[in-house]
Amino acid sequence: MSDVEQLRLKIDEQALVVRELKTAKAEKAQIDEQVSLLLELKDKLRIARGEPEAPKKSSGSGSGSSSNKAIAVKVPKGTKDYDPEDMAVRTKIFSTIVGVFEKHGAVTIDTPVFELKEILVGKYGEDSKLIYDLKDQGGEECSLRYDLTVPFARYVALKGITNIKRYQLAKVYRRDQPAMSKGRMREFFQCDYDIAGSYGEMIPDVECVRVAVDVLTKLDVGSFLIKLNHRKILDAIFEVSGVPANKVRAISSAVDKLDKLPWADVRKEMTEEKGLDDTTADKIGTYVQLRGAGEDLLKKLEAMPELMASKKAQEGMAEMALFFKYARIFNILDWVSFDMSLARGLDYYTGIIYEAVLVEENDRPTKAQPTVVAADKSKNKDAAEVDESQMCFGSIAAGGRYDELVGMFMDSKRAQVPCVGISFGIERIFSILKKRLQDQTVKANKTQVFVISI
Amino acid sequence: MSDVEQLRLKIDEQALVVRELKTAKAEKAQIDEQVSLLLELKDKLRIARGEPEAPKKSSGSGSGSSSNKAIAVKVPKGTKDYDPEDMAVRTKIFSTIVGVFEKHGAVTIDTPVFELKEILVGKYGEDSKLIYDLKDQGGEECSLRYDLTVPFARYVALKGITNIKRYQLAKVYRRDQPAMSKGRMREFFQCDYDIAGSYGEMIPDVECVRVAVDVLTKLDVGSFLIKLNHRKILDAIFEVSGVPANKVRAISSAVDKLDKLPWADVRKEMTEEKGLDDTTADKIGTYVQLRGAGEDLLKKLEAMPELMASKKAQEGMAEMALFFKYARIFNILDWVSFDMSLARGLDYYTGIIYEAVLVEENDRPTKAQPTVVAADKSKNKDAAEVDESQMCFGSIAAGGRYDELVGMFMDSKRAQVPCVGISFGIERIFSILKKRLQDQTVKANKTQVFVISI
Repeated sequence: MSDVEQLRLKIDEQALVVRELKTAKAEKAQIDEQVSLLLELKDKLRIARGEPEAPKKSSGSGSGSSSNKAIAVKVPKGTKDYDPEDMAVRTKIFSTIVGVFEKHGAVTIDTPVFELKEILVGKYGEDSKLIYDLKDQGGEECSLRYDLTVPFARYVALKGITNIKRYQLAKVYRRDQPAMSKGRMREFFQCDYDIAGSYGEMIPDVECVRVAVDVLTKLDVGSFLIKLNHRKILDAIFEVSGVPANKVRAISSAVDKLDKLPWADVRKEMTEEKGLDDTTADKIGTYVQLRGAGEDLLKKLEAMPELMASKKAQEGMAEMALFFKYARIFNILDWVSFDMSLARGLDYYTGIIYEAVLVEENDRPTKAQPTVVAADKSKNKDAAEVDESQMCFGSIAAGGRYDELVGMFMDSKRAQVPCVGISFGIERIFSILKKRLQDQTVKANKTQVFVISI
Repeated sequence: MSDVEQLRLKIDEQALVVRELKTAKAEKAQIDEQVSLLLELKDKLRIARGEPEAPKKSSGSGSGSSSNKAIAVKVPKGTKDYDPEDMAVRTKIFSTIVGVFEKHGAVTIDTPVFELKEILVGKYGEDSKLIYDLKDQGGEECSLRYDLTVPFARYVALKGITNIKRYQLAKVYRRDQPAMSKGRMREFFQCDYDIAGSYGEMIPDVECVRVAVDVLTKLDVGSFLIKLNHRKILDAIFEVSGVPANKVRAISSAVDKLDKLPWADVRKEMTEEKGLDDTTADKIGTYVQLRGAGEDLLKKLEAMPELMASKKAQEGMAEMALFFKYARIFNILDWVSFDMSLARGLDYYTGIIYEAVLVEENDRPTKAQPTVVAADKSKNKDAAEVDESQMCFGSIAAGGRYDELVGMFMDSKRAQVPCVGISFGIERIFSILKKRLQDQTVKANKTQVFVISI
């Protein structure tokens, strides 16, 4: 099937989605999102056919300087205004987060909203295409910050800092396809807590996860789960499974989709789209579908001689063993799950990685055993769909260890500054808390009317 | 004299400035600033000669994706990092300002850091060239916000708001020549307080100036003075002086320099650079050098029949008379000065305009009479230089009435939303307060050592 034919099929499917939503009188934001996906597909079809750009409907003038022409009065795609009511919710979230960060001894800094372009280059893997560049108007080439981690590492290197616990609450920018209903924006807040410098092994790592537990508990966002994995173990899995070095990145990003797709689909992506042979894919499957309580899964992995023969795996396992030892002391075992399917896209992670997700109460790991659960999803299409809708507010915080990032900005003469951190995505938390507040307000209003009518 | 010759002369002059500063062992920031001006002039000469760009010294690779090449680890020109100590000062400033804004009944909003390009087009006059555009990476054309006023007007129009008192503290972006020592940055904070909607005539205007007095008094920045003028009176002056319509903008921007240059220099700019005839320039001079206590200057202007024949002048005078009446009630007469040389560059002002400046104690207007003071500057070169050094932290807040800006974003069917506001420039206030805190800290440390040594 040619590209054009495939696109036509996708367009037909997407048009159906839009029609169904309209018929079902779905929420406007939801419809708008699907319409924008449809328009994007049509755009791709146009490009595939080599047709000229369609005239824009919303905007009368492209960039004319006359103010007489009708101009589109709106915010750029993927951005939004905060009304005074929104600001009240945001301020409450921020002060809760800052309270936890400061309790854990962090100080705050601020960095420019754009960095020299070359500071950001080569840090984000496949996602680098989502970086916003400033127009070349003479002078330096600059880009809007994509996260707060790379600017933080640049700051640590520039100032010659060897130790700092810092937090930063600021907007970051990604040219992603916006999905407002899922809280995916092009301009959005990140609230980052990072520890730079040499401390007792795995102590800062556990502290970051403890910070995540404290923040999410204080914000009262509902049940959550922090998935953990280790880059070195993941590398070892790909190594012993026989993934060619040039395919590791692509295969890793396929694995990362296991929270949204059943194993069968991920396997298909690996073999059909990314050209991996069946044996290798199956071998990866035996590892990455494992998840469960930390110490249980550690034992299970230790009993896998082929994996444990890898030096990388041994290093990663030792660190994770230490992590779970401290996690017991820090009293966070109830919230964490060792999950071999967690991969994280960014280039700069070198050790432990983690991601906090909202879950249904019975997904909590307290009673969890190392099991193969992803396969269950493929059995039942409905179950998979429920899972997808749960993903609405899926990932709300993520982070990991990045020991080599500061060094990229330093002379080789100076020592490395190892770092670990956690980043909270505010838009999703904001949506949850705003909705809750609105529900409360609506309820309060109704009651009030009831009292007065008596 | 050709452009190239003029540039050569300027470069020689500028090189002399740099040499003198280096000989005098001036502050590094001051030298760097003058060096960067010199480099810019050399760049202009290169362009005027059609020569290729000189290789950059600071940066090893332009935009290469290899991280092995040496990269320039620094922040973009005109931007800065805030260290934890800076953040403490900033937080203190912000909470003081927000306290005053909220006492005056304002709520806060937030808008995206970039707007659709066409929202900003045609709002900033000659300064539009300083707007940062985002690179065209497909999709909408966007620009970084240049101030918070235009995004606010866009917000009011988009949301269909008829009345709001709002404040906003956020960064804005201008591709200006940075002058760090003067607090002029490319990324800097503005703290804006604006009143949109129809209220009693001149009441919101006086309230904005009252807010300025409150904020600057609470921040304890030193003696300050708020210069006032009115766009309609200024227009009338240019009209009765015989300025051709197409030159009003250029002449207005020359007048605005009277706070930095003696009248002789401004007159020269008008006649030699901007081609105004001598009679017209002299006539403008009789008006724009007037300044003094409000009610006194009103009387003086009222006694000028030619000016008062203009309908615009009458309207402006009536509003200013009302302003000073309320200013007495609001108890702010001690801080304001009616100053015919204040012009303000932005396109969107339609009524009263104001600018707060730091002053030596004896410049305060309490005892001031309408006088011709600017002419004094030309008598004594030293005096002019002292004035210039005072300008280090010159303008710290500015604003005015802009009744037509919201309407530019609305259908003609809907009514106008008149607005007035004030904007505080935080970088200058920050420099003052940071220096003061540092001085205090140094002193405190010394004392401590003294006590211990006993």
